[in-house]
Amino acid sequence: MIAMSTEVPLKINIEEAHRRIKPYIHKTPIFTSSAINEITESELFFKCENLQRVGAFKMRGAVNALMSLSGVQLQKGVATHSSGNHAAALSLAARMNGINAFIVMPRTAPGIKVAAVESYGGKITFCESTQEAREKTLEEIINKSGAQFIHPYNNYRIIEGQATCAKEILEDLESPDFLVAPVGGGGLLSGTCLSAAYFGDKVKVIGAEPSGADDAFRSIRDSVIYPSINPKTIADGLLTSLCERTYEIIREHVYKILTVEDELIIKAMKLLWERMKLIVEPSGAVPLAVVIKNPGLFRGKRVGLIISGGNVDIQNLPW
Amino acid sequence: MIAMSTEVPLKINIEEAHRRIKPYIHKTPIFTSSAINEITESELFFKCENLQRVGAFKMRGAVNALMSLSGVQLQKGVATHSSGNHAAALSLAARMNGINAFIVMPRTAPGIKVAAVESYGGKITFCESTQEAREKTLEEIINKSGAQFIHPYNNYRIIEGQATCAKEILEDLESPDFLVAPVGGGGLLSGTCLSAAYFGDKVKVIGAEPSGADDAFRSIRDSVIYPSINPKTIADGLLTSLCERTYEIIREHVYKILTVEDELIIKAMKLLWERMKLIVEPSGAVPLAVVIKNPGLFRGKRVGLIISGGNVDIQNLPW
Repeated sequence: MIAMSTEVPLKINIEEAHRRIKPYIHKTPIFTSSAINEITESELFFKCENLQRVGAFKMRGAVNALMSLSGVQLQKGVATHSSGNHAAALSLAARMNGINAFIVMPRTAPGIKVAAVESYGGKITFCESTQEAREKTLEEIINKSGAQFIHPYNNYRIIEGQATCAKEILEDLESPDFLVAPVGGGGLLSGTCLSAAYFGDKVKVIGAEPSGADDAFRSIRDSVIYPSINPKTIADGLLTSLCERTYEIIREHVYKILTVEDELIIKAMKLLWERMKLIVEPSGAVPLAVVIKNPGLFRGKRVGLIISGGNVDIQNLPW
Repeated sequence: MIAMSTEVPLKINIEEAHRRIKPYIHKTPIFTSSAINEITESELFFKCENLQRVGAFKMRGAVNALMSLSGVQLQKGVATHSSGNHAAALSLAARMNGINAFIVMPRTAPGIKVAAVESYGGKITFCESTQEAREKTLEEIINKSGAQFIHPYNNYRIIEGQATCAKEILEDLESPDFLVAPVGGGGLLSGTCLSAAYFGDKVKVIGAEPSGADDAFRSIRDSVIYPSINPKTIADGLLTSLCERTYEIIREHVYKILTVEDELIIKAMKLLWERMKLIVEPSGAVPLAVVIKNPGLFRGKRVGLIISGGNVDIQNLPW
């Protein structure tokens, strides 16, 4: 059904991805905060993917995956199942290319996420909220429409796209000691690992994960992909588990995966809102929460943190 | 008591102010939003002073005023009465120069503003919330300490500092049709008027004012400075009235002052939060509210808007 490369992306693939997507994405700024540096006693550099198109880094991978398809493949549109930022990003990327995006969403998805996908022109089909129902509904839609399935992370073109975020950090920031990225399905973290290896100079990559959804931490520790069963965290972008493609890359390249409790995630999120005036979703605050939790590791270090997104219901905040 | 120039700042004064303050302020970014451009059918450029130090443009004027004083004048510190961003800015500017900032605040000031001034090292004296009590308390403090009074806007050094914001816009943005700045006491608006006259090319300056605090609108209309009596608006940074120095400049240079209701200010604020992921205080959303309210004037135009600040209690939002 899906034609994908089975080869881990090379340096040149990420460079090509970056050239391909540049006209369609924002080069997001890197901000610093002397107040937060004082608190953490380190030098933090926040890569603001909350200011990316659709409010999340997902735009990078979605554009790259879509634009890597041939004209014939694109003709009948693209499809995915997602209740989050990948669905919004794929919808916008499709609209920019004048094709359809078919999005399968659980009936239970928050109204604000449904509205976002609709606003970018995605064609939504609702289903029950089980993984099984999602996959079955998606298959029906693909069979009927002939659309190309774009998995949110188990896809090397997606991983290449997400990798361009760390590539930009490394182009702008002189010799950071660490890069910290949140980890859910692992698309962003695996891309960050690859860019660190190809474009970095001994920079260590750390995955930041909510302790209520610590399947990636356990998967790397035990060298087996654990599914994410009943994850319980406010970081709603990080509920999924690693997959074959992301796991292999992360296992080989990641320095550590560090977990952190929701209480500290909310504290970090509030710091970013109050001190930096940036709207950051809970998932995007997990890297800072990890830095706050591990002062011994980060003290005096230069750290690039990826603020992965800013899509949060501002009428329903965790404080 | 106060030694101030009685001359309206010249082009060279603003250029000097900019050179003087550059090492101490952020050059804030200008952001755009295709979503908001679609809504307003215009090309909007947001100058993000919410990302300025202390979260507001006030840092520009405070640094310039303070650093324009001689070493002898500075020795005994600076003082002001303010419950808002000017107090925070003056406190930080003083701390950077190793001197005291004495801040008179009404006992009724929100805890969050008191905390901000304290965090920047300001020495607070509380008083009753009447204008009389504030002035009397300030006078006592100045008599006792010998500190220099830095008025939040009736001071040409302050106006020069605030003018550097529009100067930066005009350096970065090719031939905008309009600049829109919020107006309270008029420090930012008068500075914007001067920079438009000195550095712009036929750009028209518009003052944006809450209709519940429309004293500037009436003052310019009737050619007399009205006091701001019982202003009632959510835009808590715009409660004050024009003064001699700001009025003279604004009267001569402003194209229009436009007023807008709180309902639309909140709507504009929400748009900035949701679409641009920026934390903007109500006062900072007034320019966008004015653009939304006047589609005929702004349609198809290139408009620079000053997001004046981002200091808002995120636990107490207007929605």
